[in-house]
Amino acid sequence: MSTLRSIPAARPTSGAPGASPRSANGPLGVFDSGLGGLTVVRALRAALPHEDIVYLGDTARVPYGTKGPATVTRYAMTCANHLVARGVKAIVIACNTVSAVAPERLRVELDLPVIGVIDPGARAAAEATRTFKVGVLATAGTIASGAYPRALSACSTRIETYGQAAPLLVPLAEEGWTRGEVPRLAARRYLEPLARAGVDVVVLGCTHYPLLLDVIESEAKALLGNHVRMIDSARAVAREVAAFLENRSLLRDAARGEGSVKLLVTDLPKSFDATASRFLGSNPEGAEQVDL
Amino acid sequence: MSTLRSIPAARPTSGAPGASPRSANGPLGVFDSGLGGLTVVRALRAALPHEDIVYLGDTARVPYGTKGPATVTRYAMTCANHLVARGVKAIVIACNTVSAVAPERLRVELDLPVIGVIDPGARAAAEATRTFKVGVLATAGTIASGAYPRALSACSTRIETYGQAAPLLVPLAEEGWTRGEVPRLAARRYLEPLARAGVDVVVLGCTHYPLLLDVIESEAKALLGNHVRMIDSARAVAREVAAFLENRSLLRDAARGEGSVKLLVTDLPKSFDATASRFLGSNPEGAEQVDL
Repeated sequence: MSTLRSIPAARPTSGAPGASPRSANGPLGVFDSGLGGLTVVRALRAALPHEDIVYLGDTARVPYGTKGPATVTRYAMTCANHLVARGVKAIVIACNTVSAVAPERLRVELDLPVIGVIDPGARAAAEATRTFKVGVLATAGTIASGAYPRALSACSTRIETYGQAAPLLVPLAEEGWTRGEVPRLAARRYLEPLARAGVDVVVLGCTHYPLLLDVIESEAKALLGNHVRMIDSARAVAREVAAFLENRSLLRDAARGEGSVKLLVTDLPKSFDATASRFLGSNPEGAEQVDL
Repeated sequence: MSTLRSIPAARPTSGAPGASPRSANGPLGVFDSGLGGLTVVRALRAALPHEDIVYLGDTARVPYGTKGPATVTRYAMTCANHLVARGVKAIVIACNTVSAVAPERLRVELDLPVIGVIDPGARAAAEATRTFKVGVLATAGTIASGAYPRALSACSTRIETYGQAAPLLVPLAEEGWTRGEVPRLAARRYLEPLARAGVDVVVLGCTHYPLLLDVIESEAKALLGNHVRMIDSARAVAREVAAFLENRSLLRDAARGEGSVKLLVTDLPKSFDATASRFLGSNPEGAEQVDL
């Protein structure tokens, strides 16, 4: 797979002082601009229960979506270097903005497997579509970046991508307002243009949206028919990471028991526990604040 | 009023090359991090139809709410200096974030009348409350800044302020989704804690919210009773600016006819015309892109 690079045999990690040698028993590193990426951690834990995970949320500098590519790349590099220094064996970019602009740069500079959140979702959508019309719900920034049409075209030139910015879904997910009329009507509003376009697959192109999967899926079925397929990009990433670790014999030894999750944040917002547990699906253990 | 400084008689404007001398017939300068501040322009035009207005939206660097005070102050100073260079007679900060951190600094450095958006709304609320319990709806950033409790305490130490972050209201206003069940239920959700606290005044503490005034007011009456008073801070600012210009004999000559609105932006987003006309209440004339 073009997005996953192999680990070179004995070359030390450059630019990562104090990094312990990468091994199958080392943790997976995951980072995001904020806490939304915890939905990717949740999916990784479901797919890979024995893996240790270190998650870094750059909560002091959230959101990345409004910043330029050079700044986003610089921030992403700082996050990734911090994870490398903690001895991670691979890095998952649980952030659409970073995945749109910086994964190649990270791969080159870090010399470590780097998996973004856009390509796996696009591949899963390309495999699922029968009409070759794929809808993408995402933030205005991700839609404007054109990252999904690019990634889907790379899978098949026959695919037409219909992007729909869905600005209400992030605050709905953050507030935990995931049932009832408001999320239902919001989902309907954003799905209607996709229904008119005749898509048969809808990609949830934002790490916040898995919290709204039930309501989005049920509205999608009502509008587009029961055959519509939802692609949760968090799960698509987790599946690719699982396959990758297995292929490279990099799975953590299951005899060591269930993996742990370590949360790092650059700022500890007041509502951290409530928001984190919403995205993670379980109570986070004490987060550590780090200075990048 | 402590927030309005007089214009010194004959002192040239420092740091503003090319500034024409300020006179009653010069324009009002208004700036915001984005386009939400156009609701303040709309209120200013209703209160002061003969004034020329130059509006600067720093759309390239929006939002300010997630940035630190030093950065916000630096950006605000750049915006204000640009307006000074265009010969404005006074500056209205149509941005809650800047109004919370930077107005004093702007007043000192610019030697020009500077009117923020928080104090006039707080004063209007303090005059309107009978229970001395005031509710404030605003973004999470404005609520966390504590600017409203500070401004309201400065008006009367008896006042208790109940702040409620209302994250859905900005995307609802930006999308123009201002009628029907979704905005009604969102307004209800945010007003319920204020109703439990027994407030009799609700401040709309974000420049986006005037677009939702009807639905917020009708829900507020249903929950809090018909006596509840809504304070639209855009209108409160416009009233104070009108009184200030009149008191200082700085009103533009009415014989010159209706005033004009000049829009400046630092980035021209795709949906600029639709969004701008929504906030301004009329079609904007061609915006000019400036480099700060």
